[in-house]
Amino acid sequence: MTIEASNVLRAKRLGIDTHQEAVIYMRRDCHVCRAEGFSAQARIRVASGASFVIATVNLITGELLASGEAGLSEAAWRRLECEEGASLRVSHARPLDSLSDVRAKVYGRQFENSAISSIMRDIVEGRYSDIHLSSFITACAARGLNEREVIHLTRAMVAAGERLDWGTPLIVDKHCVGGLPGNRTTPIVVAIAAACGLTMPKTSSRAITSPAGTADTMETLAPVDLDLNAMRRVVEKEGGCIVWGGAVDLSPADDTLIRVERALDIDSEGQLVASVLSKKAAAGATHLVIDMPVGLTAKVRTDGDAVSLKTSLLKTAEALAVKTRVIQTDGRQPVGRGIGPSLEAQDVLKVLRRDAEAPEDLRRRAVALAGALLELSGVVAEGEGESAAAAVIADGRAWAKFQAICDAQGGMREPPQSAYQHPILADHGGLIEAIDNRRLAKAAKLAGAPDAKAAGLELHGFLGQRVETSEPLFTLHAETRGEIDYALEYLDSHPPIFEIEA
Amino acid sequence: MTIEASNVLRAKRLGIDTHQEAVIYMRRDCHVCRAEGFSAQARIRVASGASFVIATVNLITGELLASGEAGLSEAAWRRLECEEGASLRVSHARPLDSLSDVRAKVYGRQFENSAISSIMRDIVEGRYSDIHLSSFITACAARGLNEREVIHLTRAMVAAGERLDWGTPLIVDKHCVGGLPGNRTTPIVVAIAAACGLTMPKTSSRAITSPAGTADTMETLAPVDLDLNAMRRVVEKEGGCIVWGGAVDLSPADDTLIRVERALDIDSEGQLVASVLSKKAAAGATHLVIDMPVGLTAKVRTDGDAVSLKTSLLKTAEALAVKTRVIQTDGRQPVGRGIGPSLEAQDVLKVLRRDAEAPEDLRRRAVALAGALLELSGVVAEGEGESAAAAVIADGRAWAKFQAICDAQGGMREPPQSAYQHPILADHGGLIEAIDNRRLAKAAKLAGAPDAKAAGLELHGFLGQRVETSEPLFTLHAETRGEIDYALEYLDSHPPIFEIEA
Repeated sequence: MTIEASNVLRAKRLGIDTHQEAVIYMRRDCHVCRAEGFSAQARIRVASGASFVIATVNLITGELLASGEAGLSEAAWRRLECEEGASLRVSHARPLDSLSDVRAKVYGRQFENSAISSIMRDIVEGRYSDIHLSSFITACAARGLNEREVIHLTRAMVAAGERLDWGTPLIVDKHCVGGLPGNRTTPIVVAIAAACGLTMPKTSSRAITSPAGTADTMETLAPVDLDLNAMRRVVEKEGGCIVWGGAVDLSPADDTLIRVERALDIDSEGQLVASVLSKKAAAGATHLVIDMPVGLTAKVRTDGDAVSLKTSLLKTAEALAVKTRVIQTDGRQPVGRGIGPSLEAQDVLKVLRRDAEAPEDLRRRAVALAGALLELSGVVAEGEGESAAAAVIADGRAWAKFQAICDAQGGMREPPQSAYQHPILADHGGLIEAIDNRRLAKAAKLAGAPDAKAAGLELHGFLGQRVETSEPLFTLHAETRGEIDYALEYLDSHPPIFEIEA
Repeated sequence: MTIEASNVLRAKRLGIDTHQEAVIYMRRDCHVCRAEGFSAQARIRVASGASFVIATVNLITGELLASGEAGLSEAAWRRLECEEGASLRVSHARPLDSLSDVRAKVYGRQFENSAISSIMRDIVEGRYSDIHLSSFITACAARGLNEREVIHLTRAMVAAGERLDWGTPLIVDKHCVGGLPGNRTTPIVVAIAAACGLTMPKTSSRAITSPAGTADTMETLAPVDLDLNAMRRVVEKEGGCIVWGGAVDLSPADDTLIRVERALDIDSEGQLVASVLSKKAAAGATHLVIDMPVGLTAKVRTDGDAVSLKTSLLKTAEALAVKTRVIQTDGRQPVGRGIGPSLEAQDVLKVLRRDAEAPEDLRRRAVALAGALLELSGVVAEGEGESAAAAVIADGRAWAKFQAICDAQGGMREPPQSAYQHPILADHGGLIEAIDNRRLAKAAKLAGAPDAKAAGLELHGFLGQRVETSEPLFTLHAETRGEIDYALEYLDSHPPIFEIEA
């Protein structure tokens, strides 16, 4: 049979961005489609050179493709590192055997370790469609993962991607169990840790559902889009860095799973633990501090949830030999004043520069986390971490180290200022009793954050503070007048973000 | 704000077939994308005239679209009944509130009836992405559905689509809980029932994973692609019809869910019951006979599964006021000799024409099912159904009625003959002890069924039969030599389909 030989098509870039989904566009009358029986939505293997991708078939009836051509979505084009006219070899994908393990979990069986490994490998190779991914996530949430399963899931996620080796036995890291706007302690913690001689090669994410990720904020101060070699040079020179993690292929299964979890708004404890710790273990961390804000509108809502999550994090971290401390913090309101990349960067700068107006809550939280890292890694004795960390800010060493890191990353810059501002006033006086973190984040996003770097909002009112009628609670910042209107429309049509007891 | 007014784009047909998925292609620099913050994979509302669809955004960077244009996938184009250059109004989709009910099921809560209704409505309106659909299916399978939930799910699936009214109090129907190749009793049962004065407006499906659906088989004998009005005319004239159900919008939620269940290979009992009975209730059935083949390679594998499924089917049918009888049948081997549209049609014709070579197992099964319908609907007394049904075949009334139905559907025709045949021989002599239905169906599909109408296979060996070495077990039929090779390649690389005890 000569089917293999005839299964070659010429690549054409159609310029269609399907986000992460690999799509191959084939003429309906294409000989390969007919011979192989490929139909629309079939998932097939597409190879170019030594690379392959599992892609969804879309069939073309019009004139988009010439005979013998196949189009690729941008995601497929990137993964195949394709060139115009390159030969694409298409074939049936091998059967998805690991799906039977997902079905077994649906019906209540525990995963064997080998099943978890197979599933993670198939996910990383792009063999799971959204339907399969969603079933895996849902089955794990519905049936739960026991301690062994969570530990092995974490290990399998690490094994399915790159793992960094820094050539030194002690690598510190921090993580925040998300959900609290403005909680931008990372640049400060890295500066303190590196100033104390620790190695802290910090990779951070860009915002996905929030108004700013650490990478977005840091980008207003210095380049963050460094590849692994550039990152290594910064860390060798300064002991620390704060770069975007996207250029480094750590726990790629996690990125895929997170996208689906977000669409479902399902966040099972086992998946969360594996997600956090697989990223850290893959990044080479040996000592880790986790900030866990608890509050009704934070990710972790109750003390009970916090205890359970903390236990699972610590057990799994121990199994992966990552020495970890979890610090429960106040998650009832944002940290600092700014929400949005540039506005948060200004808070960070004020703390590092010891500005008289520096937000004290941000400074204290960064000191608590950095102090814990200093204790955990044996730089100072137990109980002396916070004062040591505070001293590093107070004597200017943290600020000097931060500037040096920014320079090493490509040069420090000042965060941009917004073009438009609009204050939101209290409609009655009284005591601020609650602040809705989620709606506050939503308003900042509608104002343009994080894409518009200077956009977001600046808080003036905090919990326990007394305000008068028409006193500003926060100020919207935007690059365009239209985005201010967009945020105002949202605020007008939703319950107030601040609860003020008259 | 004038955002609404500016959210209009001109429709362009790109000729991209994404199967059922509605996709809107928008230029990345499109003003609407920027103003609304639409990104690739966002799901947005696209309206044209009085129709709307929830579509996935793909962003275009090249020259496929002019400024102010938006492309639509074929599925979106059809649902909007669009014309080239028509105005498309795009906006954010309303929040998917029913997803919180799916999450509650994930975490073990029962569905309220209102939650099931909301979920079905959202599914039918296309608001659920594959990720959401898969989570719903998986959660139902993992947590199960109790009797009340299954009954309400069935009702909600009926309510979310059309419901046919035939203006007569007694409508009979039949269903087979799938999985058995060649089990093509429907045309015979309809002919008998209609010949006995019953009303049997039968809608059937095309093959999805099998080598032939009833609609595929029937299409080799008469047109089946009738709309509701044409179907009504046939039924008024002849008392029965056998048409493709796709042109009638019955239980559209079921079609969507079945696609996802198939991708997951998950078939929970509750979903199966709701699927079968929602289609039948929506079609207006009042009396229903269900054929349930049981066998190791059929859909229902054990007697225990059969009892549980039968109980749930009967309870739910009672709640929906559909008088139902479930008949457990032998599912250990195919029924009749042919597998594939045309080959199965030839078996049907032989039975109706009382041909000496008519497959007796197909005749007996059709008689059993038709007899049950005659008893259930009171045409004959209990215990007299089978003999009455057999008499209708024997005296030629069934054959006359079948020809009349075919004529009313647009004219009877002879099924096509295949161009290529290839016999598969026993490699040793002995007693046939088992036949793998699933692999047999796979071979028929590789030979070209159901798209190639004459393709498939013809059985010569049956359970309990003694064969000699090199005696033919079955013959492959195909339209091209290549498809014969394709099927042979599969047979060569897999365990034998026939177990022959030497």
